[in-house]
Amino acid sequence: MSNEFSRIARYFAPLAGEEGRGLTDDAAVLRPPPGRELVLTVDQMLEGVHFLKDDAPGLVARKLLRRNLSDLAAMGAEPLGYLLTTALPAGVDDAWLAAFAKGLEQDQAAFGCKLFGGDSSSSLHGISLSATFVGHVAPGAALSRNGAKAGDGIWVTGTIGDAALGLQARLGKLADESGVLTRRSELPEPRLGLKLAGLVTAAMDVSDGLVQDLGHMCKGSGLNGTILASLVPASAAAAALGAAVLEERLTGGDDYELLLAVPPGRAGALKAACGDVPVTKIGMFQTGMGVHVIGDDGKEMRFSKPGWKHF
Amino acid sequence: MSNEFSRIARYFAPLAGEEGRGLTDDAAVLRPPPGRELVLTVDQMLEGVHFLKDDAPGLVARKLLRRNLSDLAAMGAEPLGYLLTTALPAGVDDAWLAAFAKGLEQDQAAFGCKLFGGDSSSSLHGISLSATFVGHVAPGAALSRNGAKAGDGIWVTGTIGDAALGLQARLGKLADESGVLTRRSELPEPRLGLKLAGLVTAAMDVSDGLVQDLGHMCKGSGLNGTILASLVPASAAAAALGAAVLEERLTGGDDYELLLAVPPGRAGALKAACGDVPVTKIGMFQTGMGVHVIGDDGKEMRFSKPGWKHF
Repeated sequence: MSNEFSRIARYFAPLAGEEGRGLTDDAAVLRPPPGRELVLTVDQMLEGVHFLKDDAPGLVARKLLRRNLSDLAAMGAEPLGYLLTTALPAGVDDAWLAAFAKGLEQDQAAFGCKLFGGDSSSSLHGISLSATFVGHVAPGAALSRNGAKAGDGIWVTGTIGDAALGLQARLGKLADESGVLTRRSELPEPRLGLKLAGLVTAAMDVSDGLVQDLGHMCKGSGLNGTILASLVPASAAAAALGAAVLEERLTGGDDYELLLAVPPGRAGALKAACGDVPVTKIGMFQTGMGVHVIGDDGKEMRFSKPGWKHF
Repeated sequence: MSNEFSRIARYFAPLAGEEGRGLTDDAAVLRPPPGRELVLTVDQMLEGVHFLKDDAPGLVARKLLRRNLSDLAAMGAEPLGYLLTTALPAGVDDAWLAAFAKGLEQDQAAFGCKLFGGDSSSSLHGISLSATFVGHVAPGAALSRNGAKAGDGIWVTGTIGDAALGLQARLGKLADESGVLTRRSELPEPRLGLKLAGLVTAAMDVSDGLVQDLGHMCKGSGLNGTILASLVPASAAAAALGAAVLEERLTGGDDYELLLAVPPGRAGALKAACGDVPVTKIGMFQTGMGVHVIGDDGKEMRFSKPGWKHF
C-alpha cells in the first residue's frame, strides 16, 4: 500500500485543474468567472450510512459528485470544480483508490469540472468522503427553495421513488429484474443545465424524499403544498410494483430530481426550458402551512416515516 | 435530542452569513470580492485520529477552523467564510453541539469569517468533521510551497514543537506544569495577516512536523534544505525539557507555524512584515535534494519517524 503523498500524486493529482496547483499547495487558487456569483455546496458520504462496504468504488465516487452537482442544479448553477476529502481505514487498498479515482475522472469529464484540492486522512472505522463543489450563476439568478407563491403549481422532473426502490432491491428486499431501479439508486442524474431562472419561484432537489423535501419548501415559503399521489410520475419499473410501494416512493430519498414551484401559465415555457427532461405537475401551493398528499381514494395519506432515513 | 433540521436551525443558522441564506437552501451564494482571486482549502478532523473523545467541543470547533485558517495564512490569503460538515453518532447530545457551536462563534468573531453552509449526517462510529474555507488574495499574490530558490534562507514563525509535546502531555506521557504546551496542542494560532507577498519565495504551514513539511517544500522546489537543530526556536516550556524532546519537536505535527523561504537581504523586511510574530532563520536552501538536519554535535541527525503520525 502506498503512503498518503504518493497516493495523492498517483490517483488525485491527474484529476486536478490548474486551480489545484498539482495538489501540492495548502490550498487552491480560483479566479472567479468575471461578473458571476459563486455557488458553494458540500455533501458527505459515509460507509454504512450513505453507501455499503461492497459498493463499487467508481459508483461511490460518481454518486458523491452527482449528489453535489444536484445541489448546484437546484440553485440553477453551472459547475466549476470541487475539493475532496477522504478518510480511509487501513484496509482500503490501492485497487479501491484506483477505481474510485477512475469514477471521479469519468464524471469530471461528463459534467465539465475539475478537482481543486482536498484533504486525506486515516480513519479508524469505515470510509468517510465529502466533496465541496463550486459553481457559478448570473448575479441574482440563484434559485431558492423559499420563494414559492400561493397559486404556484408543484412540479417535479423525471420520475419519483426509483432510487428508494432501488435501495430496497440492493438490500435484497425487492426484485428489480430490469436493473433500472438499482441503477437509479447507485447513479443519480443531476438535472443540470435547465434554464429555470425567471421561470420558477422556488427549486430544490429531492434528496430526503418527496414528502419531506416538499415540507421544507412549504416551510421556507410559508405555504401549504397539496399533491395528488396519482400524479407523481413513476418509472415503468416502479409502476409495475403497484400501490404496495407508493409510500416508499413518496417518502424514500436519493432521487435527485428537482422539485419546482411554477406560477400559472408557464407550463409550456417550463417544458421548453427542460427539453428532454420530463416535467410533471403534481399539485399546488396554497395559503396555509404543511404538506398534504391526497391518495387515489380522495383521502389524505398518512405516512409512517416523513422522509429518508439513513441505513 | 433534537432532530437534524432543528439542530441546524438552533445551533448553526445563527452562525451563517448572508451567503448562507439561513442554511435552508441547497447551497450558498457568494459574490466574490471584486478584483480578487479566491483561495479554497478543506481540512477534516476525526474523533480518535485528530482529536480525542473527551476533548472539549468548543476547542475541537476552534481547532477545526484554525487548521484551515492556517492553510489560508500559508497562501497569504484573508478569510471570508466556510462550509462545515458534521457526522455525529447517536450519543452526541445537544449540550455537545451547543458547546461546539459556541466555539465556532468565538473564532468566527476572532478571525472575521462566517458560516456559508454545510452538510450534516449521522455516523456509525465517532464524530467526523470537516471545514472548507474560502479566502481571497490579490491576483497572482497567492504564495506557494514550490518557489524556493537556492540561497534562500529557511525561516519559521513562532516556536516549533510545542504542539507535539502538548499532545504527549494530554496523553499523560509528559508533565506540562505551565499548561503552555497543552494549550498549543489544543488551540493553534493561525499566522494570518503577515504581509509576505513579494517577500518570500515559498510558504507553507507546519502541520505534519517540521522535517516532513520542509521535505515537501524541498521536493516542490527541487532543492536541498539544511537546517541547524540548535537554531529551531523553542518555547521556554519546551526548552526546559531539554535535548530529550528534540526529535519530537522537529518531527511532531500540529504547530501551524509558517515555514518560509526568504531570499538573502530580506531579514529586516521580513521581521517588519511579521510585526509581533517572531521569525527565525533556521537554515538554507541549496542545490540538491532532500532535508538535512545538523545536530549540536555537527553531525546529521537521523529520525525514527519522518513526521506526524495520527493517534
